Amino acid sequence: MTTSTMADIAQVSIKAAVARQRPWIEELFDRLAAGSRGQPGITRDTYGEGESFAHRLLAEQGRARGLEVGHDLAANTYVALPGRDRSLPRILIGSHLDSVPHGGNFDGAAGVVAGLVVIEALRELGICPRCDVTTMAVRAEESVWFQVSYIGSRSALGSLPDGALEARRIDDGRLLGDSIAACGGDPGAIRRGERHLDPAAIHVFLEVHIEQAPSLVESDRPVGICTGVPGNFRYPEARIMGRHDHVGTPHRFRRDAAMAGAELAMTMDRIWKEEEAASFPMAVTFGRFHTDAAVHGMTTVPGAFAFSLDVRAYDQSVLDRVEARLLAAIGEIETRRGVSFDLGARASAAVGPVEASIVAGFEASAARLGIATMLLGSPASHDAAAFAAAGVPIAMLFVRNEHGSHNPDEAMEIDDFLAACAILADWVAREVA
Amino acid sequence: MTTSTMADIAQVSIKAAVARQRPWIEELFDRLAAGSRGQPGITRDTYGEGESFAHRLLAEQGRARGLEVGHDLAANTYVALPGRDRSLPRILIGSHLDSVPHGGNFDGAAGVVAGLVVIEALRELGICPRCDVTTMAVRAEESVWFQVSYIGSRSALGSLPDGALEARRIDDGRLLGDSIAACGGDPGAIRRGERHLDPAAIHVFLEVHIEQAPSLVESDRPVGICTGVPGNFRYPEARIMGRHDHVGTPHRFRRDAAMAGAELAMTMDRIWKEEEAASFPMAVTFGRFHTDAAVHGMTTVPGAFAFSLDVRAYDQSVLDRVEARLLAAIGEIETRRGVSFDLGARASAAVGPVEASIVAGFEASAARLGIATMLLGSPASHDAAAFAAAGVPIAMLFVRNEHGSHNPDEAMEIDDFLAACAILADWVAREVA
Repeated sequence: MTTSTMADIAQVSIKAAVARQRPWIEELFDRLAAGSRGQPGITRDTYGEGESFAHRLLAEQGRARGLEVGHDLAANTYVALPGRDRSLPRILIGSHLDSVPHGGNFDGAAGVVAGLVVIEALRELGICPRCDVTTMAVRAEESVWFQVSYIGSRSALGSLPDGALEARRIDDGRLLGDSIAACGGDPGAIRRGERHLDPAAIHVFLEVHIEQAPSLVESDRPVGICTGVPGNFRYPEARIMGRHDHVGTPHRFRRDAAMAGAELAMTMDRIWKEEEAASFPMAVTFGRFHTDAAVHGMTTVPGAFAFSLDVRAYDQSVLDRVEARLLAAIGEIETRRGVSFDLGARASAAVGPVEASIVAGFEASAARLGIATMLLGSPASHDAAAFAAAGVPIAMLFVRNEHGSHNPDEAMEIDDFLAACAILADWVAREVA
Repeated sequence: MTTSTMADIAQVSIKAAVARQRPWIEELFDRLAAGSRGQPGITRDTYGEGESFAHRLLAEQGRARGLEVGHDLAANTYVALPGRDRSLPRILIGSHLDSVPHGGNFDGAAGVVAGLVVIEALRELGICPRCDVTTMAVRAEESVWFQVSYIGSRSALGSLPDGALEARRIDDGRLLGDSIAACGGDPGAIRRGERHLDPAAIHVFLEVHIEQAPSLVESDRPVGICTGVPGNFRYPEARIMGRHDHVGTPHRFRRDAAMAGAELAMTMDRIWKEEEAASFPMAVTFGRFHTDAAVHGMTTVPGAFAFSLDVRAYDQSVLDRVEARLLAAIGEIETRRGVSFDLGARASAAVGPVEASIVAGFEASAARLGIATMLLGSPASHDAAAFAAAGVPIAMLFVRNEHGSHNPDEAMEIDDFLAACAILADWVAREVA
């Protein structure tokens, strides 16, 4: 037998305290999935029935555990373990509860459950934190619904852009403002720029999220420590206008909008490769990419084409350079193919740098706990970036996940989730002791 | 004053006889358009209300002119000027009366009206032809509806492929066989391979059609003389299967079906340019080219993509070579992008060579009439090719047309149409005198 030091025992206790939460964690994930089936997969629609179900379930869990449950002007939900001095800036742990249509059960929800796990682990260890430790369930992170980024978190922080409340849900056309009101929020207050969260009153914002790429699977590690959240620019509703022509029209006479779209896609694919070859990680996605179903046909050269474009990177200067290259490529394609582009409205989100001292703290916690981790740039946008933009220190942990996310096949192992929760609980316990 | 030769007078008479038809020609085109509005443009749906209206109008015109009106097993319509010896192989002049959705008024219909014009010009000149001169209004040439080529003409010739009657209309799913029966045809007889037209009993098949590209506009000539009708191969319902992933997924992990489609389109565009640079005219069209509207979204890497492909050329060996290059490119893209292609059902149509002696005859007629022409490969498929495949000598004339075809903006001048009719009437008058 070896003799354990006090430090060893503390770590064993953290791991054990987290591991003991397993039964209710599994049950909670099951109840979440059962209540938000999306045929196939999971659909928790933003400010819709699916998302609201998840918020009701979380509030019910919080009350059953004797925690303090609240909501804000954007109908975000808070579940707080009060601290010894409630006037101190609080620790927020959270993520979103909505999903893409036909998505998976863990994208977003895992980060909310992680907040509850940390609170329960602190209580099991008998730690009464010096400041509030609050789980925040954020509304409306999945921008596929209203095509606006970070609706819930930016509303809470008073930083939702002008005009966003007039965005319409892409499937049923409902206004964002009306949808927020229907869920118990106060769009008038949001419009007036009121805020529920004062950045100065937040000590840190911590987010756990499944990894949305297979880097952790590839390297066989359960947890990734985030080095940065990408910013983006987006053209959600871009169009190309050409001319509908007969299928036999010679090349020199065509104004083929679909071929123009294909050329732009290949050009952006090449720019992406060049930037990454120069060590600037980024991503380019044409999520919607289509001829016009009302008029397209096998024997007609497409005269109209529509697409959405999302470009993301970890450095604003990379985003600026790539956008300049995009606009130059469009000009060349317009000339060469006799078409015209209308990029439509532009949206963007700032790069979200993470707090280096917390990254170091996570690395130290993981080392103490014997959990293998790696540093990872976030492929995805996250609410944490909205907090970073407001000046709040942020940090994130990624959980290994097979089959990607935003699809019904995402697969997170509870063991891996518990590993991330243990690192988070260890860091928080030291911070609030 | 100069002295006119007999030949000059005859040419003046042909031109004048054709020109005198102008009032009813304009009225007939107007009635056709008024009865088949497609908001925008013209919709004469194959074996549907629009096409059947046009056939009823033609039959009514034929009967009013004292001509012989008949129909066949595919509900094609025939309007005949009986010849002196009705046992001789007849001259067929015709084209189709259907249109693409939201097409123009002249694509197809001009060739049917041209047949009537030639008959009326012969009668005005007091020519009783040695053989029947018959206007044929063909059903179902626009393959966008049932995605089968030359349904009406091949049914008449007994050469419709097995299984074609089971094709379904792309918009409402009706079976082709049922649709033919509903229009008064006999799908059972077509299925048994019975034929209404014996190729040996057809002297020639002549087709006038608007040009579907702007070559004649570009070269400022009213009429083109066709040097060949392209054959094609087609994949009407091709699909690419990849994987839906989160918008931030790194490049190396993606299986992006839309990018695979874009790469295939750009590859085929390059192959097209290379073939034409080597003097092999052809055309490539991705008419439908789209992500899956049920699941696509701005923040999801597309895991599914669909497209139609039409490739056409004037030489079967070119088609064979390009199809081999297509399949090789697909194999490379599958490997490089981690996707799989399902090309679905394949369709094809044979190349339609034109009769050189008639081309020479058209050139001589045009020279006599003082009408500027040029030789043109047909960009499009035409029913004439189905007759050529059955061993019938064919020839075609193209009429200058602005703004392409298969769209509401096609624009044929009646003067140009009359010029084509004059060439046709001159050639027919010499052939049947």
